[in-house]
Amino acid sequence: MTKQDPLVVIVGGGFGGLAAARVLRRAPVRVLLIDRSNHHVFQPLLYQVATSVLAPGQIASPIRGLLASHENTSVMLGNVTGVDAALRQVIVDADDRVGIGIGYDYLILATGATHSYFGHDEFATFAPGLKSLADAESLRNHILSAFEKAEIESDDHRREALMTFVMVGAGPTGVELASAIAVMVRTTLRKNFRRIHPNSARVILIDMGHRPLGAFSEKLSEAARLRLIELGVDVRLGQAVQSIDAEGVVVGQERIPSKTVIWTAGVAPSPAGKWLGSAVDRAGRVRVQSDLTIPQHPEIFVIGDTASLDQGGRPLPGVAQVAMQQGVYAAKAIFRHVTKKPALPPFRYFDKGNLAVVGKNFAVLQAAGIGMSGFAAWLVWALIHIQFLAENSLRFSVFLQWVWTYLSGKRGDRLIIEHHRDA
Amino acid sequence: MTKQDPLVVIVGGGFGGLAAARVLRRAPVRVLLIDRSNHHVFQPLLYQVATSVLAPGQIASPIRGLLASHENTSVMLGNVTGVDAALRQVIVDADDRVGIGIGYDYLILATGATHSYFGHDEFATFAPGLKSLADAESLRNHILSAFEKAEIESDDHRREALMTFVMVGAGPTGVELASAIAVMVRTTLRKNFRRIHPNSARVILIDMGHRPLGAFSEKLSEAARLRLIELGVDVRLGQAVQSIDAEGVVVGQERIPSKTVIWTAGVAPSPAGKWLGSAVDRAGRVRVQSDLTIPQHPEIFVIGDTASLDQGGRPLPGVAQVAMQQGVYAAKAIFRHVTKKPALPPFRYFDKGNLAVVGKNFAVLQAAGIGMSGFAAWLVWALIHIQFLAENSLRFSVFLQWVWTYLSGKRGDRLIIEHHRDA
Repeated sequence: MTKQDPLVVIVGGGFGGLAAARVLRRAPVRVLLIDRSNHHVFQPLLYQVATSVLAPGQIASPIRGLLASHENTSVMLGNVTGVDAALRQVIVDADDRVGIGIGYDYLILATGATHSYFGHDEFATFAPGLKSLADAESLRNHILSAFEKAEIESDDHRREALMTFVMVGAGPTGVELASAIAVMVRTTLRKNFRRIHPNSARVILIDMGHRPLGAFSEKLSEAARLRLIELGVDVRLGQAVQSIDAEGVVVGQERIPSKTVIWTAGVAPSPAGKWLGSAVDRAGRVRVQSDLTIPQHPEIFVIGDTASLDQGGRPLPGVAQVAMQQGVYAAKAIFRHVTKKPALPPFRYFDKGNLAVVGKNFAVLQAAGIGMSGFAAWLVWALIHIQFLAENSLRFSVFLQWVWTYLSGKRGDRLIIEHHRDA
Repeated sequence: MTKQDPLVVIVGGGFGGLAAARVLRRAPVRVLLIDRSNHHVFQPLLYQVATSVLAPGQIASPIRGLLASHENTSVMLGNVTGVDAALRQVIVDADDRVGIGIGYDYLILATGATHSYFGHDEFATFAPGLKSLADAESLRNHILSAFEKAEIESDDHRREALMTFVMVGAGPTGVELASAIAVMVRTTLRKNFRRIHPNSARVILIDMGHRPLGAFSEKLSEAARLRLIELGVDVRLGQAVQSIDAEGVVVGQERIPSKTVIWTAGVAPSPAGKWLGSAVDRAGRVRVQSDLTIPQHPEIFVIGDTASLDQGGRPLPGVAQVAMQQGVYAAKAIFRHVTKKPALPPFRYFDKGNLAVVGKNFAVLQAAGIGMSGFAAWLVWALIHIQFLAENSLRFSVFLQWVWTYLSGKRGDRLIIEHHRDA
């Protein structure tokens, strides 16, 4: 690698961006990875931070640490606000400087997704989502505080509202979070209060669709639904949320008083489409070509939740696996281009299967045409997640924490930490 | 225990308050422990959270969890704002309710201490202290962000200010924090940046006195000073800080540009003296009688950092050991009073010794007339701290984390988490 090597700028240190950086380690290029935060987060386990099982540090690693041994790679903490495709520059705010232009030879946009309230942005104040470590910590504080407030509340109605937890959206995040809260109130918190009974808390999961976990087979959805009910979760399907405010939600004709409403329904892509002035799909994701680049710009790749690509007539889902495979593909494509090798065949997603956990000892798994639910699926889930975390040297600590929580019912990180804004 | 049993209110879930609650578990009383936060913090290790070695959850436990098996004990999350000694009530703000009066038969005030800027409260904005988990997380964010900013800073002077870390006060907190930062920049961060060299960071420890760790013997102070210098810490003794602002500190005639100034100098007691209208010492601590009660109020005990008591002509130090022994004493005194047994002899502090760690592999220890410094003292330090944490079921995880950090130089929790205020 020399100063003259082409510069690959990767925006985003999520699953896709990191996968790309790892492939480019041995390429004759310089790599600059820009992210708004200093850490990579293992998003599929955020709900375990929100429910006090894992600590933030157990599902996140500093990006600099992960890439420290990549001698051709720099990391920058900054917020990308635009792309000038004509000048081949990304525009970055960093520290107190605004609009720094950074030139690139190749660009990989892996900027991920945020919550979508489907046009109801006013819901955001009352129903936060779960996308970052700060979201997860804030939700943890909120859930634990609700019980603290309930313990000293003398009004029955207000106490009930404090002890009612509503998840809007029964995809994997909604199902995993609802079941984790249901388990928490019946185990860890059970003996901790004197006036309230945490196990009388209501956990409600609402979805417009007619089954939870729509990405799974109908049979597995039904298994998950029965398990949720067994855990005490009130599963309400085919119901649309009319409104959300500080006092609760309105579903159909019914008002459900609740002090904790969590948005687990929709994701919206980052504004990469706007930066590029490029064609987007209905959800706002950038339409990419079969080589993951955008038309007229063979040097710009868009991957992961930010990109829209159909395969077999359906858009690829916004999951970690897609992002990682696309990150590897984009990096290999650049590697080949730089070393003047023939181009890769079009990108093809290989679906290794789908997994979701429902409380303790129970998961649903769908892979290679096989469906499976129950304890065996849960073991597969645990092993796969520990394996994934291994890349970030987090495996051992998470494994121990899980064994501990599993056996004792105690949780590792049941802290309410009140933060003041920091400079 | 019945509804008619006398009620002991303990304010504060630190070392003193918890020790008292534990003794009262078997007493024929009801116990109510009130704290502003939901967790007990092992304060002596806060500096390890600030320097990314330990996660917040590894040095803190939810108070409810610690006391869950105490059937006579309730826990309340609330902020005590006053005491009405005539009516025998504490005044509490909890949730959104202000000024709730809670009657007591016995009161134990164990409200701890906060930072004292010795009349320079304007320093607080620029030189935060280290007393709570939120302080430690915020300092962690700040230190890690300073390196991120330095990496993209093109101005030499500003880069130097970002990479200069000043501790004001060379007591145990200042010494432990300075040496931990010195170790961090030379190990964990060393290979993580491309433009800056973290090991060129300046770590400066300032004290008005003529030696660090004034509570130790002169010989041990000197051993600590030499070790600090070996670690690359710039130790400046006999120097008073003239001013602190956003650009750094002025010491004597010299301005030291720094973006990170940490106040490790003084502690001030909580306002318990004001609540009680009671006599206080020069530092503002409540003067207690030899049975730890205040005059005219045999039912009010004041313990730990909030109390002032002389022994052998010198005031007892504000350390965990004193708080714990006083907590046990106050609880036993109440136990005897309730069960109509003869009163205890006056409180006497038994000094088990003093320990402070200076970087890796080195501590100073002074106990029973013996002084010791070096690796053996460090082993004693590690064993004692792991033993202490055991009470809170945190031992195993901390032990593993230390072994991991010790062997690999990696740190567990190097995260910058930007928090928005939570409801």
